[in-house]
Amino acid sequence: MATLPTPAPFITADAFLEHWQGHRRLTRRVIEAFPEDAFTSYSIGGMRPFSLLVKEMLGMAIPTIKGVATGKWEYDEGPTLSSKAEALRLWDEVTTKMNEIWPTIPANRFPKVDLAFGQWEGPGHWIIHYIVDNEIHHRAQGYVYLRSLGIAPPAFYER
Amino acid sequence: MATLPTPAPFITADAFLEHWQGHRRLTRRVIEAFPEDAFTSYSIGGMRPFSLLVKEMLGMAIPTIKGVATGKWEYDEGPTLSSKAEALRLWDEVTTKMNEIWPTIPANRFPKVDLAFGQWEGPGHWIIHYIVDNEIHHRAQGYVYLRSLGIAPPAFYER
Repeated sequence: MATLPTPAPFITADAFLEHWQGHRRLTRRVIEAFPEDAFTSYSIGGMRPFSLLVKEMLGMAIPTIKGVATGKWEYDEGPTLSSKAEALRLWDEVTTKMNEIWPTIPANRFPKVDLAFGQWEGPGHWIIHYIVDNEIHHRAQGYVYLRSLGIAPPAFYER
Repeated sequence: MATLPTPAPFITADAFLEHWQGHRRLTRRVIEAFPEDAFTSYSIGGMRPFSLLVKEMLGMAIPTIKGVATGKWEYDEGPTLSSKAEALRLWDEVTTKMNEIWPTIPANRFPKVDLAFGQWEGPGHWIIHYIVDNEIHHRAQGYVYLRSLGIAPPAFYER
Protein backbone atom coordinates (compact mmCIF):
# COMPACT_ATOMS: atom_id res chain seq x y z
CA MET A 1 0.00 0.00 0.00
CA ALA A 2 1.41 3.36 -0.98
CA THR A 3 1.76 5.86 1.81
CA LEU A 4 0.28 9.29 1.39
CA PRO A 5 2.86 12.02 0.86
CA THR A 6 3.78 13.84 4.08
CA PRO A 7 2.34 17.35 3.98
CA ALA A 8 5.09 19.80 3.05
CA PRO A 9 6.45 21.63 6.11
CA PHE A 10 6.29 25.40 5.72
CA ILE A 11 8.76 26.23 8.52
CA THR A 12 10.56 24.21 11.20
CA ALA A 13 10.07 24.74 14.92
CA ASP A 14 13.63 26.09 15.31
CA ALA A 15 13.16 28.62 12.53
CA PHE A 16 9.80 29.68 13.95
CA LEU A 17 11.32 30.44 17.36
CA GLU A 18 13.95 32.60 15.64
CA HIS A 19 11.15 34.30 13.66
CA TRP A 20 9.34 35.10 16.91
CA GLN A 21 12.47 36.28 18.74
CA GLY A 22 13.21 38.53 15.76
CA HIS A 23 9.80 40.13 16.24
CA ARG A 24 10.45 40.39 19.97
CA ARG A 25 13.75 42.20 19.34
CA LEU A 26 11.81 44.71 17.25
CA THR A 27 9.12 45.12 19.93
CA ARG A 28 11.89 45.74 22.46
CA ARG A 29 13.18 48.60 20.28
CA VAL A 30 9.66 50.04 20.10
CA ILE A 31 9.50 50.05 23.93
CA GLU A 32 12.84 51.86 23.98
CA ALA A 33 11.61 54.44 21.46
CA PHE A 34 8.75 55.63 23.72
CA PRO A 35 9.18 58.68 25.94
CA GLU A 36 8.91 57.43 29.56
CA ASP A 37 5.60 59.16 30.33
CA ALA A 38 3.99 58.30 26.98
CA PHE A 39 4.84 54.62 27.53
CA THR A 40 2.37 54.35 30.42
CA SER A 41 -0.13 57.09 29.50
CA TYR A 42 -0.36 57.94 25.77
CA SER A 43 -3.44 56.71 23.92
CA ILE A 44 -5.43 57.25 20.71
CA GLY A 45 -9.15 56.63 20.37
CA GLY A 46 -9.55 55.19 23.89
CA MET A 47 -7.11 52.34 23.23
CA ARG A 48 -4.71 51.06 25.88
CA PRO A 49 -1.35 52.79 26.44
CA PHE A 50 1.62 50.84 25.12
CA SER A 51 2.65 49.66 28.62
CA LEU A 52 -0.61 47.69 28.91
CA LEU A 53 -0.06 46.09 25.51
CA VAL A 54 3.45 45.08 26.58
CA LYS A 55 2.00 43.72 29.84
CA GLU A 56 -0.27 41.47 27.75
CA MET A 57 2.61 40.31 25.53
CA LEU A 58 4.74 39.53 28.60
CA GLY A 59 1.89 37.58 30.17
CA MET A 60 1.10 35.48 27.10
CA ALA A 61 4.45 34.21 25.82
CA ILE A 62 5.59 31.70 28.47
CA PRO A 63 2.15 30.31 29.43
CA THR A 64 1.43 29.67 25.74
CA ILE A 65 4.71 27.87 25.09
CA LYS A 66 4.28 25.87 28.33
CA GLY A 67 0.69 25.02 27.38
CA VAL A 68 1.69 23.73 23.96
CA ALA A 69 4.62 21.84 25.51
CA THR A 70 2.67 20.18 28.33
CA GLY A 71 -1.10 20.51 27.75
CA LYS A 72 -1.31 22.48 31.02
CA TRP A 73 -2.67 25.97 30.47
CA GLU A 74 -2.06 28.55 33.18
CA TYR A 75 -3.30 32.01 32.30
CA ASP A 76 -1.14 34.99 33.26
CA GLU A 77 -2.46 38.52 32.82
CA GLY A 78 1.09 39.88 32.79
CA PRO A 79 3.00 42.15 35.15
CA THR A 80 2.01 45.70 36.09
CA LEU A 81 4.65 47.90 34.48
CA SER A 82 5.58 51.22 36.05
CA SER A 83 8.59 52.05 33.86
CA LYS A 84 10.29 51.23 30.58
CA ALA A 85 13.31 49.87 32.49
CA GLU A 86 11.11 47.34 34.28
CA ALA A 87 9.44 46.34 31.00
CA LEU A 88 12.81 45.82 29.30
CA ARG A 89 14.18 43.78 32.21
CA LEU A 90 11.13 41.48 32.19
CA TRP A 91 11.27 41.33 28.38
CA ASP A 92 14.79 39.92 28.54
CA GLU A 93 13.82 37.42 31.24
CA VAL A 94 11.01 36.13 29.03
CA THR A 95 13.40 35.91 26.06
CA THR A 96 15.70 33.61 28.04
CA LYS A 97 12.84 31.45 29.38
CA MET A 98 11.32 31.10 25.91
CA ASN A 99 14.61 29.79 24.54
CA GLU A 100 14.79 27.28 27.41
CA ILE A 101 11.22 25.94 27.17
CA TRP A 102 10.73 25.96 23.39
CA PRO A 103 13.00 22.93 22.67
CA THR A 104 10.96 20.87 25.18
CA ILE A 105 7.83 21.04 22.98
CA PRO A 106 7.25 17.54 21.57
CA ALA A 107 7.05 17.65 17.75
CA ASN A 108 3.56 16.11 17.75
CA ARG A 109 2.15 18.96 19.85
CA PHE A 110 2.43 21.50 16.99
CA PRO A 111 -0.28 19.88 14.82
CA LYS A 112 -2.28 18.53 17.80
CA VAL A 113 -5.58 20.25 18.60
CA ASP A 114 -5.91 21.36 22.22
CA LEU A 115 -8.17 23.70 24.19
CA ALA A 116 -5.77 26.54 24.98
CA PHE A 117 -6.43 28.15 28.35
CA GLY A 118 -9.70 26.18 28.48
CA GLN A 119 -11.17 28.51 25.87
CA TRP A 120 -9.56 28.51 22.43
CA GLU A 121 -9.53 25.30 20.44
CA GLY A 122 -6.96 24.71 17.72
CA PRO A 123 -3.61 23.13 16.88
CA GLY A 124 -0.48 24.13 18.80
CA HIS A 125 0.91 26.05 15.81
CA TRP A 126 -2.33 28.02 15.62
CA ILE A 127 -2.32 29.29 19.20
CA ILE A 128 1.40 30.16 18.98
CA HIS A 129 0.89 32.02 15.70
CA TYR A 130 -2.00 33.85 17.38
CA ILE A 131 0.27 35.12 20.16
CA VAL A 132 2.96 36.28 17.72
CA ASP A 133 0.37 37.95 15.46
CA ASN A 134 -1.18 39.62 18.51
CA GLU A 135 2.25 41.06 19.31
CA ILE A 136 2.71 42.35 15.72
CA HIS A 137 -0.82 43.82 15.83
CA HIS A 138 -0.40 45.67 19.14
CA ARG A 139 3.17 46.72 18.37
CA ALA A 140 1.81 48.42 15.24
CA GLN A 141 -0.52 50.39 17.53
CA GLY A 142 2.67 51.52 19.24
CA TYR A 143 4.06 52.60 15.84
CA VAL A 144 1.03 54.86 15.31
CA TYR A 145 1.32 56.26 18.84
CA LEU A 146 5.00 57.08 18.17
CA ARG A 147 4.28 58.67 14.77
CA SER A 148 1.51 60.80 16.25
CA LEU A 149 4.01 61.92 18.91
CA GLY A 150 6.39 62.95 16.12
CA ILE A 151 8.82 60.07 16.81
CA ALA A 152 10.15 57.86 14.00
CA PRO A 153 9.67 54.20 15.05
CA PRO A 154 12.34 51.52 14.41
CA ALA A 155 12.34 50.00 10.92
CA PHE A 156 9.81 47.16 10.58
CA TYR A 157 12.19 45.05 8.50
CA GLU A 158 15.00 45.06 11.09
CA ARG A 159 14.81 42.10 13.41
CA MET B 1 24.91 5.11 10.05
CA ALA B 2 22.17 6.77 12.06
CA THR B 3 20.36 9.55 10.29
CA LEU B 4 19.97 12.89 12.00
CA PRO B 5 16.44 13.57 13.22
CA THR B 6 14.39 15.65 10.77
CA PRO B 7 13.79 19.10 12.24
CA ALA B 8 10.27 19.24 13.68
CA PRO B 9 7.85 21.00 11.34
CA PHE B 10 6.02 23.88 13.04
CA ILE B 11 3.22 24.21 10.47
CA THR B 12 2.49 22.64 7.09
CA ALA B 13 2.23 24.62 3.87
CA ASP B 14 -1.53 23.91 3.61
CA ALA B 15 -2.17 25.14 7.13
CA PHE B 16 -0.05 28.22 6.53
CA LEU B 17 -2.09 29.21 3.48
CA GLU B 18 -5.26 28.90 5.56
CA HIS B 19 -3.59 30.98 8.29
CA TRP B 20 -2.82 33.70 5.73
CA GLN B 21 -6.26 33.61 4.12
CA GLY B 22 -7.77 33.91 7.61
CA HIS B 23 -5.79 37.12 8.08
CA ARG B 24 -6.86 38.29 4.65
CA ARG B 25 -10.54 37.73 5.52
CA LEU B 26 -10.01 39.96 8.54
CA THR B 27 -8.23 42.63 6.48
CA ARG B 28 -11.18 42.53 4.06
CA ARG B 29 -13.54 43.32 6.96
CA VAL B 30 -11.30 46.22 8.01
CA ILE B 31 -11.57 47.64 4.45
CA GLU B 32 -15.36 47.30 4.69
CA ALA B 33 -15.40 49.07 8.08
CA PHE B 34 -13.86 52.27 6.68
CA PRO B 35 -16.06 55.19 5.65
CA GLU B 36 -15.55 55.66 1.87
CA ASP B 37 -13.74 59.01 2.11
CA ALA B 38 -11.60 58.01 5.10
CA PHE B 39 -10.41 54.91 3.21
CA THR B 40 -8.50 57.03 0.69
CA SER B 41 -7.73 60.13 2.77
CA TYR B 42 -7.61 59.58 6.55
CA SER B 43 -4.16 59.62 8.15
CA ILE B 44 -2.44 59.95 11.54
CA GLY B 45 1.06 61.33 12.04
CA GLY B 46 1.78 61.67 8.32
CA MET B 47 1.31 57.95 7.66
CA ARG B 48 -0.31 56.61 4.49
CA PRO B 49 -4.11 56.38 4.24
CA PHE B 50 -5.46 52.83 4.46
CA SER B 51 -6.08 52.60 0.69
CA LEU B 52 -2.32 52.91 0.05
CA LEU B 53 -1.58 50.18 2.60
CA VAL B 54 -4.12 47.93 0.88
CA LYS B 55 -2.52 48.77 -2.48
CA GLU B 56 0.79 47.51 -1.08
CA MET B 57 -0.80 44.32 0.27
CA LEU B 58 -2.50 43.67 -3.08
CA GLY B 59 0.76 44.22 -4.94
CA MET B 60 2.85 41.93 -2.73
CA ALA B 61 0.83 38.73 -2.35
CA ILE B 62 0.91 37.13 -5.81
CA PRO B 63 4.45 38.19 -6.83
CA THR B 64 5.79 36.78 -3.56
CA ILE B 65 4.03 33.43 -3.94
CA LYS B 66 5.11 33.26 -7.60
CA GLY B 67 8.68 34.15 -6.64
CA VAL B 68 8.88 31.42 -4.02
CA ALA B 69 7.24 28.96 -6.44
CA THR B 70 9.47 29.70 -9.43
CA GLY B 71 12.53 31.73 -8.37
CA LYS B 72 11.34 34.52 -10.70
CA TRP B 73 10.70 37.75 -8.82
CA GLU B 74 8.54 40.38 -10.50
CA TYR B 75 7.86 43.38 -8.34
CA ASP B 76 4.35 44.88 -8.41
CA GLU B 77 3.67 48.16 -6.61
CA GLY B 78 -0.04 47.35 -6.46
CA PRO B 79 -3.10 48.92 -8.08
CA THR B 80 -4.23 52.52 -7.59
CA LEU B 81 -7.46 52.27 -5.60
CA SER B 82 -10.16 54.90 -5.99
CA SER B 83 -12.90 53.18 -3.99
CA LYS B 84 -13.57 50.49 -1.40
CA ALA B 85 -15.59 48.51 -3.97
CA GLU B 86 -12.58 48.35 -6.28
CA ALA B 87 -10.30 47.30 -3.41
CA LEU B 88 -12.69 44.53 -2.37
CA ARG B 89 -13.07 43.25 -5.93
CA LEU B 90 -9.30 43.06 -6.42
CA TRP B 91 -8.93 41.56 -2.93
CA ASP B 92 -11.18 38.65 -3.94
CA GLU B 93 -9.33 38.18 -7.24
CA VAL B 94 -6.04 37.89 -5.34
CA THR B 95 -7.63 35.41 -2.91
CA THR B 96 -8.55 33.12 -5.80
CA LYS B 97 -5.17 33.44 -7.50
CA MET B 98 -3.33 32.74 -4.25
CA ASN B 99 -5.26 29.51 -3.78
CA GLU B 100 -4.39 28.49 -7.35
CA ILE B 101 -0.67 29.26 -7.23
CA TRP B 102 0.14 28.19 -3.65
CA PRO B 103 -0.09 24.41 -4.30
CA THR B 104 2.44 24.76 -7.14
CA ILE B 105 5.23 25.77 -4.70
CA PRO B 106 7.71 22.87 -4.55
CA ALA B 107 8.23 21.72 -0.94
CA ASN B 108 11.97 22.36 -1.13
CA ARG B 109 11.43 26.05 -1.93
CA PHE B 110 10.16 26.86 1.60
CA PRO B 111 13.53 26.26 3.33
CA LYS B 112 15.62 27.33 0.30
CA VAL B 113 17.41 30.67 0.51
CA ASP B 114 16.72 32.98 -2.44
CA LEU B 115 17.19 36.68 -3.22
CA ALA B 116 13.59 37.88 -3.19
CA PHE B 117 12.93 40.67 -5.70
CA GLY B 118 16.71 40.92 -6.17
CA GLN B 119 17.00 42.57 -2.76
CA TRP B 120 16.01 40.51 0.27
CA GLU B 121 17.89 37.31 0.98
CA GLY B 122 16.31 34.55 3.03
CA PRO B 123 14.41 31.26 2.92
CA GLY B 124 11.04 31.05 1.15
CA HIS B 125 9.17 30.77 4.45
CA TRP B 126 10.88 33.92 5.66
CA ILE B 127 9.83 36.16 2.78
CA ILE B 128 6.26 34.79 2.90
CA HIS B 129 6.05 35.34 6.66
CA TYR B 130 7.35 38.86 6.06
CA ILE B 131 4.47 39.64 3.68
CA VAL B 132 1.86 38.26 6.08
CA ASP B 133 3.40 40.12 9.03
CA ASN B 134 3.49 43.30 6.95
CA GLU B 135 -0.25 42.89 6.36
CA ILE B 136 -0.92 42.38 10.10
CA HIS B 137 1.25 45.42 10.88
CA HIS B 138 -0.41 47.78 8.41
CA ARG B 139 -3.90 46.46 9.12
CA ALA B 140 -3.32 47.38 12.78
CA GLN B 141 -2.64 50.94 11.58
CA GLY B 142 -6.10 50.74 10.06
CA TYR B 143 -7.48 49.65 13.45
CA VAL B 144 -6.06 52.79 15.06
CA TYR B 145 -7.42 54.97 12.24
CA LEU B 146 -10.88 53.43 12.77
CA ARG B 147 -10.75 53.85 16.57
CA SER B 148 -9.70 57.48 16.22
CA LEU B 149 -12.68 57.96 13.88
CA GLY B 150 -14.94 56.52 16.59
CA ILE B 151 -15.54 53.26 14.67
CA ALA B 152 -15.21 49.85 16.38
CA PRO B 153 -12.99 47.65 14.17
CA PRO B 154 -13.74 43.95 13.54
CA ALA B 155 -12.57 41.53 16.24
CA PHE B 156 -8.91 40.57 15.83
CA TYR B 157 -9.59 36.94 16.76
CA GLU B 158 -12.23 36.38 14.06
CA ARG B 159 -10.75 34.99 10.88
